[in-house]
Amino acid sequence: MLTLTLTVADATRLGLELFTAAGARPDEAALVVNELVEASLMGLDSHGLLRYSDYLGWVRSGQIKPGAPATIVRETATTAVVDCGLNFGQVSAAYIVDLARTKAAQAGTACVVSQNCNHVGRLGAWPQKLAEAGFFGLAFANSPRRGHWVVPFGGREGRLATNPLAYAVPTNGQPVVMDMSTAMIAEGKVRVLLHQGRPLPPGAVIDAAGLPTTDPAAFYGPPHGAILPFGGELGYKGFGLSLLVEILGGILGGFPSTKDGAHINGFCLLALDPDKFCGRERFQFLMDDLSAYITGTPPLTPGGPDVIMPGTLDFRTRARRLVEGLPLAENIWRLMEQAAADLQVDLAWARAGFAQPLS
Amino acid sequence: MLTLTLTVADATRLGLELFTAAGARPDEAALVVNELVEASLMGLDSHGLLRYSDYLGWVRSGQIKPGAPATIVRETATTAVVDCGLNFGQVSAAYIVDLARTKAAQAGTACVVSQNCNHVGRLGAWPQKLAEAGFFGLAFANSPRRGHWVVPFGGREGRLATNPLAYAVPTNGQPVVMDMSTAMIAEGKVRVLLHQGRPLPPGAVIDAAGLPTTDPAAFYGPPHGAILPFGGELGYKGFGLSLLVEILGGILGGFPSTKDGAHINGFCLLALDPDKFCGRERFQFLMDDLSAYITGTPPLTPGGPDVIMPGTLDFRTRARRLVEGLPLAENIWRLMEQAAADLQVDLAWARAGFAQPLS
Repeated sequence: MLTLTLTVADATRLGLELFTAAGARPDEAALVVNELVEASLMGLDSHGLLRYSDYLGWVRSGQIKPGAPATIVRETATTAVVDCGLNFGQVSAAYIVDLARTKAAQAGTACVVSQNCNHVGRLGAWPQKLAEAGFFGLAFANSPRRGHWVVPFGGREGRLATNPLAYAVPTNGQPVVMDMSTAMIAEGKVRVLLHQGRPLPPGAVIDAAGLPTTDPAAFYGPPHGAILPFGGELGYKGFGLSLLVEILGGILGGFPSTKDGAHINGFCLLALDPDKFCGRERFQFLMDDLSAYITGTPPLTPGGPDVIMPGTLDFRTRARRLVEGLPLAENIWRLMEQAAADLQVDLAWARAGFAQPLS
Repeated sequence: MLTLTLTVADATRLGLELFTAAGARPDEAALVVNELVEASLMGLDSHGLLRYSDYLGWVRSGQIKPGAPATIVRETATTAVVDCGLNFGQVSAAYIVDLARTKAAQAGTACVVSQNCNHVGRLGAWPQKLAEAGFFGLAFANSPRRGHWVVPFGGREGRLATNPLAYAVPTNGQPVVMDMSTAMIAEGKVRVLLHQGRPLPPGAVIDAAGLPTTDPAAFYGPPHGAILPFGGELGYKGFGLSLLVEILGGILGGFPSTKDGAHINGFCLLALDPDKFCGRERFQFLMDDLSAYITGTPPLTPGGPDVIMPGTLDFRTRARRLVEGLPLAENIWRLMEQAAADLQVDLAWARAGFAQPLS
């Protein structure tokens, strides 16, 4: 299968044409496309351009309701519960970031949770926006019952989603951005390995009988298997972290863990203003001091890779891809072409831009 | 070596006599002793009675300053930086719990961080107190540079402490209490295995050359080795979590990661009031619903141990030990006797209470 290359400008234009043709408002289309392009730029291809066709399909099926207003269901000076109305998850998350930042700037702390929120994409993007504005951000995203692929520690059936958490911290340079699933592997990665005919990493998945397997097909069954919580023999820690995500992402906003929902993610964002603690300048100075201390650690093996702060690899990938362009698997391009045909959007200009010949 | 058994009443009386003789105010002694007895009751012996002699030694050396007032250095309606004055860590943490609960009850969210805080003991105890009052609590504890035994992911030298985090959540029954280190093993556990002449679990520790080892002596050296972050091959996740603890526990309060300090823990406590989100009643109902869903998971192996929520084992141990008494290793008792002799406290009554004959 070919891997094509798109410039950022072309990837953006492509997305804008498709999403506006599908009925998204230009400002919302721009926001969603920008986030998906950013994810691809940072190397998180699973949350990047390949989502164009998913989201367009969801608009068609009514899962995503472009233009739906966000409604504050309940609010205090530091908290809010936001009904996102099933607009694009990125539109909702950006609204929640603004709300949390405004509240934290005034009150020092803030916590905002979602209802009826679609897929928020790269979770780290949202605390990163807080960090770029000088705030500390901590985010959680759960999923309703149909996404429960992950077993509680010591269990055999899925009861939790891969439940990521992410945080970001301002420095005087690039923010520190940590973004992690609380499971051993993402379901999307199992799917990729299945399609590639490659084995799963050991210790990540069990089959329907509860036995360890490296066969992606044994995960999908039927009967389907499950993903283990992060941590191996210490998996009670990953399980505990997954519950934390479930409680803050889902239950705090009032949504039961035992029901399925119309939404894709339950999103929770905490914000802190360092100015109300040790002061922003001191905080960022100490973050730089910490980063220098950490990255100065001698590598495990002499001559081995340098120790880096969370997010550094992603920012390096971003710098490289800004120059080299974004990789796009041919099958993803074909899905985009299909979506374009359905929407009567002409992508001849994009096709003409590929260095590689396409049949 | 004998394992003695103390009733809760005797363990408490013993602690009160020793700590007040050492110069602690009766109310502060009662608070500290109660927390250490609670930790032993819940099965966390490493944070229980064995700390009596440590803390008494720290009072003698001036590390702990009984009666020192807590001072609020900076405060808003939702935040505070508290200088704990090197009083007992438990006295400081209890003060911070009260402050965070009061602020969260009024404002919905709160975040309080410490300066000059001694050892706070069982970290989960503090969010648990919030949960028992109906609040969600999330706590972080770092340590200054002399406790940096844990390597950043991919590194060979310690740059972080074992940096635990803990959270607790109200339900209509016992709270959910999760308390975990972000490292593969606690330094105290390495010490215990060294004394017992037993090997370390594989994958937890490296020697000074960066090679994996199961020999506790290779950790202490000299030259000393280091502890790996939680997660094995996915240890960048444990590393990222450890940095989160470092940033909230240390940097937010203004303390550099690269300096040693007079304190033992940097403590950060976040509190949320569910009443400002979906409502306390709804929240606790949904927590019970989640607990039933999780504990109803079929076990990994048929007939294997039931799936349980975080904290359940500890509460079961507590119920058992309330009846059976607290185990106390003979060598820990000997340290208490030594401390008692130094303080001219007569422990004949306690010695007379042991079922086992002591030489």
